[in-house]
Amino acid sequence: MAHVFPAVAPPLRPPDRQGAVRTAARMAESALAVEGVATGSGEFRDWYAGRVREDVAEVRRIPLAELSGWCREPGTGNLVHDSGRFFSVEGLAAEDAEGGFPGWDQPVIRQPEIGILGLVAKEFGGVLHFLMQAKNEPGNHNGVQLSPTVQATRSNYTRVHRGASVPYLDFFRQADRHRVLADSLQSEQGSWFDGKRNRNIVVEVSEEVEVAVGENFRWLTLGQIHRLLAEDDVINMDARSVLACLPFGGADEAAVPSAGGGPGALLLRSCADGTGALHTTGEILSWLAGLRAVSGLSARRVPLDKVRGWKRTEESVAHEDGRFFRVIGVDVRAAGREVRQWTQPLIEPVAQGVVAFLVTELGGVVHALVNARTQAGLVDKVELAPTVQCVPSNYPQAVRPPQLRFLDEVLAAPAQRIRFDSRLSEEGGRFHHAVNRYLIVDWHGDHRIEDDTFRWIALHQLAGLLRHGHYVNIEARSLIACLHSLTGGTAATGTGEEVPA
Amino acid sequence: MAHVFPAVAPPLRPPDRQGAVRTAARMAESALAVEGVATGSGEFRDWYAGRVREDVAEVRRIPLAELSGWCREPGTGNLVHDSGRFFSVEGLAAEDAEGGFPGWDQPVIRQPEIGILGLVAKEFGGVLHFLMQAKNEPGNHNGVQLSPTVQATRSNYTRVHRGASVPYLDFFRQADRHRVLADSLQSEQGSWFDGKRNRNIVVEVSEEVEVAVGENFRWLTLGQIHRLLAEDDVINMDARSVLACLPFGGADEAAVPSAGGGPGALLLRSCADGTGALHTTGEILSWLAGLRAVSGLSARRVPLDKVRGWKRTEESVAHEDGRFFRVIGVDVRAAGREVRQWTQPLIEPVAQGVVAFLVTELGGVVHALVNARTQAGLVDKVELAPTVQCVPSNYPQAVRPPQLRFLDEVLAAPAQRIRFDSRLSEEGGRFHHAVNRYLIVDWHGDHRIEDDTFRWIALHQLAGLLRHGHYVNIEARSLIACLHSLTGGTAATGTGEEVPA
Repeated sequence: MAHVFPAVAPPLRPPDRQGAVRTAARMAESALAVEGVATGSGEFRDWYAGRVREDVAEVRRIPLAELSGWCREPGTGNLVHDSGRFFSVEGLAAEDAEGGFPGWDQPVIRQPEIGILGLVAKEFGGVLHFLMQAKNEPGNHNGVQLSPTVQATRSNYTRVHRGASVPYLDFFRQADRHRVLADSLQSEQGSWFDGKRNRNIVVEVSEEVEVAVGENFRWLTLGQIHRLLAEDDVINMDARSVLACLPFGGADEAAVPSAGGGPGALLLRSCADGTGALHTTGEILSWLAGLRAVSGLSARRVPLDKVRGWKRTEESVAHEDGRFFRVIGVDVRAAGREVRQWTQPLIEPVAQGVVAFLVTELGGVVHALVNARTQAGLVDKVELAPTVQCVPSNYPQAVRPPQLRFLDEVLAAPAQRIRFDSRLSEEGGRFHHAVNRYLIVDWHGDHRIEDDTFRWIALHQLAGLLRHGHYVNIEARSLIACLHSLTGGTAATGTGEEVPA
Repeated sequence: MAHVFPAVAPPLRPPDRQGAVRTAARMAESALAVEGVATGSGEFRDWYAGRVREDVAEVRRIPLAELSGWCREPGTGNLVHDSGRFFSVEGLAAEDAEGGFPGWDQPVIRQPEIGILGLVAKEFGGVLHFLMQAKNEPGNHNGVQLSPTVQATRSNYTRVHRGASVPYLDFFRQADRHRVLADSLQSEQGSWFDGKRNRNIVVEVSEEVEVAVGENFRWLTLGQIHRLLAEDDVINMDARSVLACLPFGGADEAAVPSAGGGPGALLLRSCADGTGALHTTGEILSWLAGLRAVSGLSARRVPLDKVRGWKRTEESVAHEDGRFFRVIGVDVRAAGREVRQWTQPLIEPVAQGVVAFLVTELGGVVHALVNARTQAGLVDKVELAPTVQCVPSNYPQAVRPPQLRFLDEVLAAPAQRIRFDSRLSEEGGRFHHAVNRYLIVDWHGDHRIEDDTFRWIALHQLAGLLRHGHYVNIEARSLIACLHSLTGGTAATGTGEEVPA
């Protein structure tokens, strides 16, 4: 090979592994900082209470037929926006080429554009802080929750709705000017979206960042954010998704900061990829490739008017048996939003779901039991999902479909084995009062409970896979954020206390 | 976290990195073995000449209207098989939501099932050998080429065509019983296929393997295969694809076997991920995520009858200006195939293409100049492509579209800077006489020629990305196989000799 001209020979960047060790240590330091340098916890409480008080929206349910700016497209019945953008509600027909299951039809949200879930990070007093936004979404049952710095669809930031510009967006549009801590395209709900993905990105900036935009933003350490995760409905789905992608992986076992001998230290050690795992990452990748190759599931979009088993009325689109979800309309009148009044469709699940990881320690490394789950709306059809991810009331008592495997183990676990238990919302811009109970439960028994679609996977392996898209679904990412929250928060300071549910 | 019962506490597998070092060293050893233990090169020559002589097929071009077992689907004009399986030829409409380019229509092969490209590896005399198959495909202009051990569509191996069973298939269907060296779903031609992917898998077996199946199989070292890559049209596309996925990455710089001070040793050192790179892998991933997020390209399938700009006749489907490719029919009468007579459609490009990497050494590490290329038929739209990938005659002389960037640098390179130059075929089961000139050319100048869609990427980074799907396109994978072939073959033993074109 030719040598380049010596005059321009560039220095090489060291292997990612070297940088990863230092970055993971900084994540750990921020996770252990339960008090902020930029924003004291008392100050945060006052500010957050103020946002909740002041940023209110009146969300009124209206018939789909009364949506303004949206129409039922002639010929298909699809719910589309007059601009042709934002998103649409269409139909999806899922089939199994192999005849292994009967197939089904359902409404689905189509949003082919890739939005940005962006988090800005910056050091204060040597500790990484993250710029969180108080954001009111129409589907949130409690109004304001904490979102990432930027949570914008492409329509948002190209200003289709002629609202205000998106603050801090340029940090992500020109990400290579900053230190990029995480950046990947990640899937969203495979049961409700058709191929939706967002760019989950975290950039660290060294310059001064103006924080005065409508008083909606505050810098918090990971430790502060983690404590808020233990509360119901404070940290929103988009924030959890991007928090899960933070570069915890690549930690050096020897360099793990001391957090006592408790669960915090164990979790940090489990992020070090030198600690090994029950299965090699190569084995996990091969298992997934094999399942994807034989999956007979194919999904094609169909007109919403042609979806079988669902009732379309002026009011809503609902399942004939009242199961799963409804498509409803809302009228929103908001203070502090880019646009002050609008109407839109939302998906409203009929009941609360359960999303849970069974976790165990194997050889000093925390492993979670993941389920390789086929979902019609995922681009690559199979991703790693939580141990349990279901709405129990969708299934008759007598039936125990694979979706309910391990549900009893989770719900019947004694309190001292429940490490995490919060009610958290899914994205309030698309889903109406969509709340799941998120649980992390110690598995206290023989680990040999894997089958074709379940594997114990080490925490550092999940962190490694999260550098890429197509591997970890949104529900599992939420739980991974929750799992990291046990590092330094109240619930996991080594006292073995139970987490209040 | 709970401890598991001590009685069943399993030993953890060491980090992938440890295993990867040894595996990469074994790859290097096999690459340096230019003579085989299982099959001497003379013996191979005799056998291959015999296969070429005996495994002959008469391939006759016929009008599409005369295909038997295939029909034009009423209402769409799509070319479909009567069984509804194998593949179909449909239409694709590519559009740019942002209006950055005008969009286009084209015929496309749809083959949603995921096939297997599987290679069986086994040690003979301490050196890894790979079981190659002599296979005659109807689109090959020279009949027999060397394919992986198994090259089977799902229709093949589920016996839709009622032919013979696929030898060695069980090694891949039950891969976890063996040592899996590589296993990922990889894309195929994004300009000709709609979302086609195959499982590229390599398993190492320790048991005895029966090799008597029709005398079509021989064990070869990587060094032997690499020498054959330097010849025109011996190693087929599927073999190149899976060879590129071999676990060369993870090599330990210190453990690189001596191959003199020439290009061989340089290439092996470049597979060691401890050597650094011009850009970190994190930066490369972020660059790709950013391009995918802003890509406005959307592609939807349309009926073949509705494809604009193409002429449909009884004979073929061809572009109105005679550019790009034609869809033609062939009648095949073969000896030594599972089914002895059949007809099928094939895609026939109108001219020979050029596929090339510019490579350079930066800081002792070989880097290739990759192009993040948007292709309508890729599941994730943007993948890493070669520096040059085009059919020059598709473009008028006066026009220099982005596709032709660096074409002159490649074609005008002096002979001593051409490291590799072979004419190689694309998949003969779908493409008729689709031959590209594959080149690897030393870039002898300032490396600062990157722009928005070009990056220098180290060989070990490409190896790392190839553990996953959606990153490296089929043309780039072919070239990566060619690049590895310079490790120990005649063309790269450090003498600086030119490669005969």
